[in-house]
Amino acid sequence: MAASVPIDSERLWSSLMTMAEIGKTPGGGVRRLALSDEDRAARDRLAVWLAEAGLAVRLDDLGNMYARRAGADSGAAPVVFGSHLDTVPTGGRFDGVLGVIGALEVIRALDYAGIRTRAPLELVNWTNEEGARFAPAMLASGVVCGRFTREEAYAARDAGGRTFGDELARIGCQGETANRLRGCAAYLELHVEQGPVLERAGTQIGVVEGIEGISWSRIEVTGRAAHAGPTPTPDRRDALVSAAKLVLLARDTAEHLDGVRTTVGHVEVSPNTVNVVPGRVEMTLDVRSPRDAGLDEALRAADQACAEIGKMDRVEARRTEFWRSPVTPFSPVVIEAVAGAAKSRNFSATRLWAGAGHDAKYMADRYPAGMIFVPSKDGLSHNEAEWTPPEDCARGAAVLLDAVLALAGTA
Amino acid sequence: MAASVPIDSERLWSSLMTMAEIGKTPGGGVRRLALSDEDRAARDRLAVWLAEAGLAVRLDDLGNMYARRAGADSGAAPVVFGSHLDTVPTGGRFDGVLGVIGALEVIRALDYAGIRTRAPLELVNWTNEEGARFAPAMLASGVVCGRFTREEAYAARDAGGRTFGDELARIGCQGETANRLRGCAAYLELHVEQGPVLERAGTQIGVVEGIEGISWSRIEVTGRAAHAGPTPTPDRRDALVSAAKLVLLARDTAEHLDGVRTTVGHVEVSPNTVNVVPGRVEMTLDVRSPRDAGLDEALRAADQACAEIGKMDRVEARRTEFWRSPVTPFSPVVIEAVAGAAKSRNFSATRLWAGAGHDAKYMADRYPAGMIFVPSKDGLSHNEAEWTPPEDCARGAAVLLDAVLALAGTA
Repeated sequence: MAASVPIDSERLWSSLMTMAEIGKTPGGGVRRLALSDEDRAARDRLAVWLAEAGLAVRLDDLGNMYARRAGADSGAAPVVFGSHLDTVPTGGRFDGVLGVIGALEVIRALDYAGIRTRAPLELVNWTNEEGARFAPAMLASGVVCGRFTREEAYAARDAGGRTFGDELARIGCQGETANRLRGCAAYLELHVEQGPVLERAGTQIGVVEGIEGISWSRIEVTGRAAHAGPTPTPDRRDALVSAAKLVLLARDTAEHLDGVRTTVGHVEVSPNTVNVVPGRVEMTLDVRSPRDAGLDEALRAADQACAEIGKMDRVEARRTEFWRSPVTPFSPVVIEAVAGAAKSRNFSATRLWAGAGHDAKYMADRYPAGMIFVPSKDGLSHNEAEWTPPEDCARGAAVLLDAVLALAGTA
Repeated sequence: MAASVPIDSERLWSSLMTMAEIGKTPGGGVRRLALSDEDRAARDRLAVWLAEAGLAVRLDDLGNMYARRAGADSGAAPVVFGSHLDTVPTGGRFDGVLGVIGALEVIRALDYAGIRTRAPLELVNWTNEEGARFAPAMLASGVVCGRFTREEAYAARDAGGRTFGDELARIGCQGETANRLRGCAAYLELHVEQGPVLERAGTQIGVVEGIEGISWSRIEVTGRAAHAGPTPTPDRRDALVSAAKLVLLARDTAEHLDGVRTTVGHVEVSPNTVNVVPGRVEMTLDVRSPRDAGLDEALRAADQACAEIGKMDRVEARRTEFWRSPVTPFSPVVIEAVAGAAKSRNFSATRLWAGAGHDAKYMADRYPAGMIFVPSKDGLSHNEAEWTPPEDCARGAAVLLDAVLALAGTA
């Protein structure tokens, strides 16, 4: 068996830290909203590095950046890998950018080792993954994979009323439709875990099995508003007391249903006044599971809780699902390539599911796809304090490199 | 024993319904905010009725209206009775106005029966009891009783930025400081219960023992915001889950501590986003009890809950009291006058505590005071559907009349 292609950990880290200067915040994080001047500067920086590696950048009509490294078989579909350079408003230095700079390091390392692959390789930087500026998230990969139309993407507006289309043109990153990704033998994305599982287990690599299903519901609890003064406790139909029971039962569901997580994240109380018994509470329920059946079981439990608490407390409690993203399992071939790479590098690895969306989700709808996770300190993400140490970044890039080689073959 | 002085139930009801036309809402309620044009029209209507009864109106510097009916002993301090004509934005036809029109009916009935009292009688209409336009509530009686300064009252602003002082002058109701209430043998206020106790018990008259103590606290729960996706349940420090436990424990306290009621009325969740585990919840705790010790016991229970849940859930939970109104017991002499009146009229009566503030609260701080409650249908108040039937209104006025006679004496 051939010796592993070495990753230059210092070069990788140096590029990560250089990129982190673009949109750097006083708190040590990064603010690099999609299609902002900072995003443009980051794209320029990446283009320079790619040019130094002898690769030209191809821009599509969504501003997605591709750089192709030729393979021995020029007719073969490429192995594609990358992530995104945009961040949330007070983001960190690793979310997304590690997947792009890690991909750059793979190309640099292959160049340095003089390795030519059979299939072409293609680095990608997806536009507006976060959705923090233009909702929804993963907008540009979503268009490329047929989930949204280009018109929908162009019409998306930020909080200031500017559209995706106008801002894309303004920063000069609108390319040709013909430049979109066409054909993909496999897609790989290296990313920080954004959760505490790897760190807590002391595991170096997360082999991602897929992207969990997500269900978003609205729960409306209607009781009766009443004066906090003269209304005896037994006469109250306090919507907040009933809503509090539902919050705790949702947590209980998560603790008892295998592989299910629930979050009540948004709550509106009405009339929301210190001396009025709440007459109405509206809240959201976010349910995630690697099993679509897990979503349904959790929602059934929530409905049963609504019915029982409604009856017991003389309130009306109704749940309505308003969005669902089904479970997206990754390709077994790609998963095995990642697991094999971690094993051959002697890195400890564990299989897990991604609880959040990634561009890999839409890519997996059309192509064989997979992801590699590396630890996030304290599980922090979308946070200026986001941290993944240099050696973890390098391990992730090494697994990406080996998985890419396994999928692309060598010439 | 002399025959009871008769109340003219139809006259009382007709005046109540005439007053309800001023500021009438499409929903059958009343919008008559303090110092609005509608308030001015209501004051004018009352002044006409008083003039018809031969009484002149005295306006003080807060716009409080007084009308004195002479007694045999002109040097004696008056027995004062009344309430307020202002309403909340979507108020009903009885809250406050029954106490004023009921007082008018007492004067009319005494005139008709040709009864002269020993002590003078004084009808009062207090300005801005509700506090719905100019916070805080009971502002003008508060100034008269030394709780606030006139400057504080004048400076109070409505949501549109207009001050109490300016609006008082605008509607032409600013009188002389010398016209303020001076001396008061006893104060009586007839009011709808605003709760369901009398109606549910089928009792006609509530003999009010005092005004409950009220404590308002802010509870801040600080956990850690986290992505709803990749954060496993055991790793979460969900401020909303802990807050929900505190809401239920507050209810539990109310159910187990004698004579204590608790309300969590206001809740703010942060960041309040569907897919983020709440990092912080701020909420209010309203505690009421006829025993000051009851307030303290409930607050101790809340503090203990904060400490225990904080430890168990790895969150910080802190309670801070930001306002307290101590228990205000009414005068035993006035309470007995009310109870005796109900008994001599053969009305069923029960003793209860007022859970909400009334002008009688500040009056009780300085003078012997008491209140008479009549039933509120379904306990509704501050609501367009507020309803107390004519016979209940008449019974309340009859008890007011007899209590006034008992306290003022007859010539």
